[in-house]
Amino acid sequence: MQSIPASKRASSIEYAIRDVVVPATQLEAEGHEIIKLNIGDPLAYPGLPTPAHMVQAYIGALESGRNGYSPSYGLPELREAIAEDERHKGWPAQAETVYVCHGVTEALQILFAAVLEEGSSILAPGPHYPPYMAYPQMYGATTVEYRLKGDDGWRLDFDDIEQKMSDDVRLFVLINPNNPCGSVAGRQDVERLLSILERYPNCILIADEIYDGLDYTGTHVSAASCSSTVPVITLNGVSKVYYAPGWRLGYMALHDPTARLSHVQDALERLLRSRLCPSTPAQWGYLAGLTGDRSWMATYAQRVQDQRDYCLQRIAETDGLELQAPGGAFYMFVQLTDEQWKNDDKAFVLQLLEEEHVLLVHGSGFSPEFGAGHVRLVFLADVAVLKEAFDRIDRFLSRHRSAA
Amino acid sequence: MQSIPASKRASSIEYAIRDVVVPATQLEAEGHEIIKLNIGDPLAYPGLPTPAHMVQAYIGALESGRNGYSPSYGLPELREAIAEDERHKGWPAQAETVYVCHGVTEALQILFAAVLEEGSSILAPGPHYPPYMAYPQMYGATTVEYRLKGDDGWRLDFDDIEQKMSDDVRLFVLINPNNPCGSVAGRQDVERLLSILERYPNCILIADEIYDGLDYTGTHVSAASCSSTVPVITLNGVSKVYYAPGWRLGYMALHDPTARLSHVQDALERLLRSRLCPSTPAQWGYLAGLTGDRSWMATYAQRVQDQRDYCLQRIAETDGLELQAPGGAFYMFVQLTDEQWKNDDKAFVLQLLEEEHVLLVHGSGFSPEFGAGHVRLVFLADVAVLKEAFDRIDRFLSRHRSAA
Repeated sequence: MQSIPASKRASSIEYAIRDVVVPATQLEAEGHEIIKLNIGDPLAYPGLPTPAHMVQAYIGALESGRNGYSPSYGLPELREAIAEDERHKGWPAQAETVYVCHGVTEALQILFAAVLEEGSSILAPGPHYPPYMAYPQMYGATTVEYRLKGDDGWRLDFDDIEQKMSDDVRLFVLINPNNPCGSVAGRQDVERLLSILERYPNCILIADEIYDGLDYTGTHVSAASCSSTVPVITLNGVSKVYYAPGWRLGYMALHDPTARLSHVQDALERLLRSRLCPSTPAQWGYLAGLTGDRSWMATYAQRVQDQRDYCLQRIAETDGLELQAPGGAFYMFVQLTDEQWKNDDKAFVLQLLEEEHVLLVHGSGFSPEFGAGHVRLVFLADVAVLKEAFDRIDRFLSRHRSAA
Repeated sequence: MQSIPASKRASSIEYAIRDVVVPATQLEAEGHEIIKLNIGDPLAYPGLPTPAHMVQAYIGALESGRNGYSPSYGLPELREAIAEDERHKGWPAQAETVYVCHGVTEALQILFAAVLEEGSSILAPGPHYPPYMAYPQMYGATTVEYRLKGDDGWRLDFDDIEQKMSDDVRLFVLINPNNPCGSVAGRQDVERLLSILERYPNCILIADEIYDGLDYTGTHVSAASCSSTVPVITLNGVSKVYYAPGWRLGYMALHDPTARLSHVQDALERLLRSRLCPSTPAQWGYLAGLTGDRSWMATYAQRVQDQRDYCLQRIAETDGLELQAPGGAFYMFVQLTDEQWKNDDKAFVLQLLEEEHVLLVHGSGFSPEFGAGHVRLVFLADVAVLKEAFDRIDRFLSRHRSAA
């Protein structure tokens, strides 16, 4: 009998970051050890554990029997703590319009389901985090990429944005700091973006600020705090800045300065109720992170920054690699300049994996148009591991250059 | 300025079980205590805690730093333990085709996204658990209800199924034991169902067996174990039988006796990778439940059964209520026979809540066609609470009968 067909939407979904894990797992099964610089998981590397007071609060919730369902929008205490945290970033967030989700991934799925229709479109940065391309099409919508300037620090290309904006654009995505480029948009750029968006009354700004505590430039600004006209939905969570991605907790927070989100809010709430709730005990762990001491953050950030600086130095010394230095997050988006690789970043990634057992992610997985010829490197491993990785990359590049 | 429109799909989503919580929360804010018999959460009532060895294993995972992302399909150890458990239910489950999700809710979303297209349809029992109606329409598909016999123990109506099956039906849903009715389908009924489904080569049976350990009839059977022709995707998880719904862990397990699921499996895996992973530390707690001692289960089940028996007795003594006694799960679907309520179960629920502070769910929320004139009652509270609830229901019915 014939195989049962799958839906067209699902067959076209790709998630480069985990898709490259498939050949890596194969090599591991054969007994090889892989240096994995592919995934943005601080816990995958020693030295950056989830802070102990957060773990203790999570354990306390389990021990006191908080194992049942919780409210669909999140625990009231957590929603209030998130609102308070956002208020410190400069805008009047309210607990009633903060919604806790199973990671930002679930927040995105719910947001897209609530807003997008057949024929609507969404503008996302190129390059971008893959779900911004994968999920909108699940709801009949199309993602259009606006250009980040690969020759100017991956800054927003406003000419390109002006040209691509239209009344069909229902969501505009700003990832700040950016994944995969690590670029940070400051106040001036965010304000210029808002002045464009305010001409489109049906467009909501999605401000993905999941890396906002990892800003080495000191210029990061909350988009909601800059907007007095455009509705902004801020995304953030426990995964990155609080070093607990396996807990799967994120949130969306609504900023609605011109009172236009009532229908969208109703739709979000219906969808949230239908999917029950995020993990109950984990929410207590996140709450401890938001309300407890944060002095550990500077130590962690310094370590990540030192690792970044080591990578910058190595890339500067390596023929065949060029870089627009990242100002935030823990990603760098490295350009391949060798003739051999610049037109086939995926071949570079797969062959490097095969020959040198170093795992990166091909840039075209983040944007066929704007990411090709690049690779994303995660700088969460310690310097000793990064040194070994760059030694291997260097050896790989040299070997193939001399063979060419 | 005008409010930004939401998508049509989201605006029509309803989830009766949590939608009735909105007015209840209002009453609580005014200082009233509500007896909540609306939600299938064992942890919401004293006396049925998550087993200690599961909680300890979860804590152990947190303490040993398992706070990072985990594999998208689930921890290998957990997938193997689930496969082993399903093999004990009589079919050759394999770890490689077991996928761990953020609750059965996420499994459903992924399944529907992987299989359904614009124009396809899904047959689900009437009455049914609400997401089976809400989610397929998100992907352009239509849910058609097949009748459960409200006058014969809510058994499958095979004539109705025969009439409604067609080549457009891509998924057939069997909820066994059923939510909201508590009915259990035995081997004979499952085999008869399979003999119908095998005539439709593009149809997959979804066997929602999340309540399978709560069978008071001793007749429950795994649908996959009965099928040598029809592909079956079994859904189950930690929430109900393991008393840990707030952990949000479920799974789908593929049974593909005629090798037709390769495309669907590929689609499921793409979707699973794109959404990262379920909670990492919680998976260790579930693993302990599957591999540890299970003698506690009989004690818990006996208690739930005693509570059921108390409800049966009270309903038999109450004018205005009739019941097809449930054989499984912790739900009963009670018929309202008073003239005043039989045509408006939602008014009954809202007025009972308002006047007597007892919260049930209206049957029409589980099926406008087959559930109207009923209410769902959860029998997880202890007998003292159930006694008070029935005293109030009785009082409410009498008062309104004499006023009529």
